[in-house]
Amino acid sequence: MKIAILPGDGIGPEIMEQAVRVLDALGESFETERAEVGGAGYAAHGHPLPEATLKLAKEADAVLFGAVGDYKYDTLERALRPEQAILGLRRELGLFANLRPAILYPELAGASTLKPEVVSGLDILIIRELTGDIYFGKPRGVRECPDGPFKGQREGFDTMRYAEGEIRRIAHVAFQAAQKRGRRVTSVDKANVLETFQFWRDIVTDVHQEYPDVELEHMYVDNAAMQLVRAPKKFDVIVTGNMFGDILSDAAAMLTGSIGMLPSASLDANNKGLYEPSHGSAPDIAGQGIANPLATILSAAMMLRFSLGKPEQADRIESAVKSVLQQGLRTADIFEDGTQRVSTSQMGDAVVRAL
Amino acid sequence: MKIAILPGDGIGPEIMEQAVRVLDALGESFETERAEVGGAGYAAHGHPLPEATLKLAKEADAVLFGAVGDYKYDTLERALRPEQAILGLRRELGLFANLRPAILYPELAGASTLKPEVVSGLDILIIRELTGDIYFGKPRGVRECPDGPFKGQREGFDTMRYAEGEIRRIAHVAFQAAQKRGRRVTSVDKANVLETFQFWRDIVTDVHQEYPDVELEHMYVDNAAMQLVRAPKKFDVIVTGNMFGDILSDAAAMLTGSIGMLPSASLDANNKGLYEPSHGSAPDIAGQGIANPLATILSAAMMLRFSLGKPEQADRIESAVKSVLQQGLRTADIFEDGTQRVSTSQMGDAVVRAL
Ligand SMILES: CC(C)[C@H](C(=O)O)[C@@H](O)C(=O)O
Ligand SMILES: CC(C)[C@H](C(=O)O)[C@@H](O)C(=O)O
Repeated sequence: MKIAILPGDGIGPEIMEQAVRVLDALGESFETERAEVGGAGYAAHGHPLPEATLKLAKEADAVLFGAVGDYKYDTLERALRPEQAILGLRRELGLFANLRPAILYPELAGASTLKPEVVSGLDILIIRELTGDIYFGKPRGVRECPDGPFKGQREGFDTMRYAEGEIRRIAHVAFQAAQKRGRRVTSVDKANVLETFQFWRDIVTDVHQEYPDVELEHMYVDNAAMQLVRAPKKFDVIVTGNMFGDILSDAAAMLTGSIGMLPSASLDANNKGLYEPSHGSAPDIAGQGIANPLATILSAAMMLRFSLGKPEQADRIESAVKSVLQQGLRTADIFEDGTQRVSTSQMGDAVVRAL
Repeated sequence: MKIAILPGDGIGPEIMEQAVRVLDALGESFETERAEVGGAGYAAHGHPLPEATLKLAKEADAVLFGAVGDYKYDTLERALRPEQAILGLRRELGLFANLRPAILYPELAGASTLKPEVVSGLDILIIRELTGDIYFGKPRGVRECPDGPFKGQREGFDTMRYAEGEIRRIAHVAFQAAQKRGRRVTSVDKANVLETFQFWRDIVTDVHQEYPDVELEHMYVDNAAMQLVRAPKKFDVIVTGNMFGDILSDAAAMLTGSIGMLPSASLDANNKGLYEPSHGSAPDIAGQGIANPLATILSAAMMLRFSLGKPEQADRIESAVKSVLQQGLRTADIFEDGTQRVSTSQMGDAVVRAL
């Protein structure tokens, strides 16, 4: 089994170092190989997704990804900016299913900006389609406005689109995930306004016929954004498109107050995947040894479960993380009075010890 | 001055009745005329936005709108469903600037699902562009997928677009609103992915040059959704497109926990406007006399300020609403122990008395 290790920028390398230590401590014989990505890819090879990096990611059985982005790359033209690496990997590897759990660990209930009774025990799984929608639709660009009151002016434009097969496959992922959880799927759309999402709703409804044991509810995206704030525990699995999923999964993550704890998986049709923390590269705290490595460590656990066929090793890591939280160890982002503040590497040490 | 009164469906008529009583109590000589809209428009004339209703709305100096939608119209084809009335009015009247305050009244701090320290004193103004973006862009529909791995399948598609002039005019509205408030504008986009919103960012930046006294910050929509949950009080004015604004304004409204209190204004280029509560038609509680009329009453206040040139009357209504809250009167949606529960009409009575 070969794992591509792409640390990236900002805190990426520090948190990745701890995740790799945890993987090493499992006693499995994984082959790992590193490559530059994001700003680091641009710095080393002139492109955020260098050819060698893409080749490695394609060859490997799974990709463990840190984070990309740093202020110093903000002025590059868009095609060379770090986040293009993520978009490129998703597209080139066909990673259409993004799984983002929003889980509130009981030990961290205080970290949320929401009242404890609203979020304690929160356990939502957001499934975001990741290779379609307005992210990749064509045509797009800046053109002369062809009609209407602004005819002749410049206009920016993009194309939202979903083909039937794209909707079907992500709907299957959602229903199957729900079968292993609370058996409820909320499909989020904007069928009252968008043709794309009326079509989405029709197809999801059709796929649902194959899953009579799962309850399906349709919800408009504006209402979903409200319900996430009002009563997030009512959700089990949320499935939605790329754009709405981008917004809702971040909102849901923030409900927990501890985005430094949340992993994610992006899977292709054969369960090959890219695994990364839900948080960003936090260049403002990079190199200080204070970043929380747990989201990356938990992403490695998801990788073991979904792509490497080692669910028991995934369980071991997840138990080890719970145990360090119970021991009261906290990085700065989740520190509270009465707990013990530790550094990035001390947190890694603690997880390795707990394994 | 002529006001078009469009009560609509669900709780629309009940809350509108109280708003009209409040307007009557001001002692001004407004002409008012009623018309059916939404499901009521369909029931009476076979269309959610009957011709006579549109004509009235166009003639009037301002439109006071209740709410539309009811379960019984859910199975109609999309073009006949109640919400098409809102879209039609926005488009036909050119109501491009939607102003949605998210204000937390100190008396209602407990209603929020967020911790009091996170939301107490919250006062954000969300300015949503309302006649452009993917809501109205063409082409749209269901077609045969023209290329890529799903070629030949059916696909749903829509067009996102913003012309330069559309962005300029909403940016001006935002900067001018900020000048009367905290002098800070957050422009929310997705410039890292969408051509439309890279263009949006460029134009907003350009318009900003005319407002050196206002601070401008650009923020990605996913981050904005997170910051609304994490630290909403950091925002002053948020300006964004139609689709992102739909999602973020509802999320922001829900932060207050009292969406029954929040008015909105949708303005054209000459400050003619449509005014409506931020909440929906709540058909489940319609006819029970328990709906909160305050958002509609406060929408009437916005109407007096923005379209009817009567800011002092707007102030009077807003003070009267504050005073009934201080008296401890609450409709069911904002009721808490230690306050007095009142009906829709009792709440209207109290506001009229307080005037
Ligand atoms: C960096 C950006 C292109 C990306 C996205 O919008 O998908 C990010 O926000 C994410 O959610 O992974
Ligand atoms: C009913 C619907 C078309 C509408 C919208 O999406 O704009 C509503 O959600 C709103 O925000 O006024």
